[in-house]
Amino acid sequence: MIQKLLHHIESFIRIEQREKGLLESLFELKEWGKHEYVLQQGDVCKEIGFVTKGLVAYFIEEADEHHTYHFGQENEFVCNYESFLSKSPSSKSIKCIEPVEMLCINQVKLEQLYEQTAQGERMGRLISEQLFLTAIAELTSFYVDSPEQRYLNFLKRYPSLNQRIPQYLIASYIKVKPQSLSRIRKRMLKK
Amino acid sequence: MIQKLLHHIESFIRIEQREKGLLESLFELKEWGKHEYVLQQGDVCKEIGFVTKGLVAYFIEEADEHHTYHFGQENEFVCNYESFLSKSPSSKSIKCIEPVEMLCINQVKLEQLYEQTAQGERMGRLISEQLFLTAIAELTSFYVDSPEQRYLNFLKRYPSLNQRIPQYLIASYIKVKPQSLSRIRKRMLKK
Repeated sequence: MIQKLLHHIESFIRIEQREKGLLESLFELKEWGKHEYVLQQGDVCKEIGFVTKGLVAYFIEEADEHHTYHFGQENEFVCNYESFLSKSPSSKSIKCIEPVEMLCINQVKLEQLYEQTAQGERMGRLISEQLFLTAIAELTSFYVDSPEQRYLNFLKRYPSLNQRIPQYLIASYIKVKPQSLSRIRKRMLKK
Repeated sequence: MIQKLLHHIESFIRIEQREKGLLESLFELKEWGKHEYVLQQGDVCKEIGFVTKGLVAYFIEEADEHHTYHFGQENEFVCNYESFLSKSPSSKSIKCIEPVEMLCINQVKLEQLYEQTAQGERMGRLISEQLFLTAIAELTSFYVDSPEQRYLNFLKRYPSLNQRIPQYLIASYIKVKPQSLSRIRKRMLKK
């Protein structure tokens, strides 16, 4: 498990051999069942998780509708970062599409990671910057892109997930009814 | 000039005495006239500026309308951060409402700052996190808040700027025509 995480962290920074034990001690393995909430709208996001197995969907819950806007998969960090940073109630939910295993770290331990590793702060900055760009792009797309464009974005961003994500969630992600999704697919095949 | 900047940086991190000369050498003082562009939509944002004097407006230019969504003032950093990070063309413009003086740093020199100061990476992370939260909050508000709510946000976020910003820009910020702004003000006074 921890090897996947160390490998991912090493794509951002150099980890000294003696730091690997520390990193291992800061993360805790947790499990969720299919359809379970990792984070529920209104709660404060208190942990960042690194997915070692499974798949989650991020969405905004309104009275009669769910707006799916992001998916998280193996070798990615899962978190509502604005709730985590500001310690304020989350305006989004995160739910498991499959059974999920994640290595989780809370704020106190993350601060330890930043302080006690040579390049911890650098990793924090690089991950922050990446999350910033992703969030801006997704939030903007959510408002400006057409369903066709969002379907193209989906295929480009999650090339291996088309089979693992239920059709009604893909439809929600591109902001159409499920029956419209198959029409969009047919139209795109013709082009 | 540089004292204001050092003081601002010290609100994030501790600067060693010997690092002050380095910091001073990395920033360059630049000036803009009233109504001049600091950044024009379509160009890549290549510098971050720290405002020592003046005021700027951030906006999105469409064919027949400007959507103002943020103001930058003294002792704040000014930048389109997503364009700066991704080196991609900016989807927003930044323009001077008053004559402006800024201490500017480009990407190469910022990387030097991160690498050659003890807590540079930490500052980078903290500023990234803050910009992330501001961008998410403003982008969200731009789509979900009513004009009344946006006027309240404006007064709360920029308490000292009500007199310095032309009325048509405040109206654009809260997404109404200038004549509607005075109606909103009257309504709010009655409450």
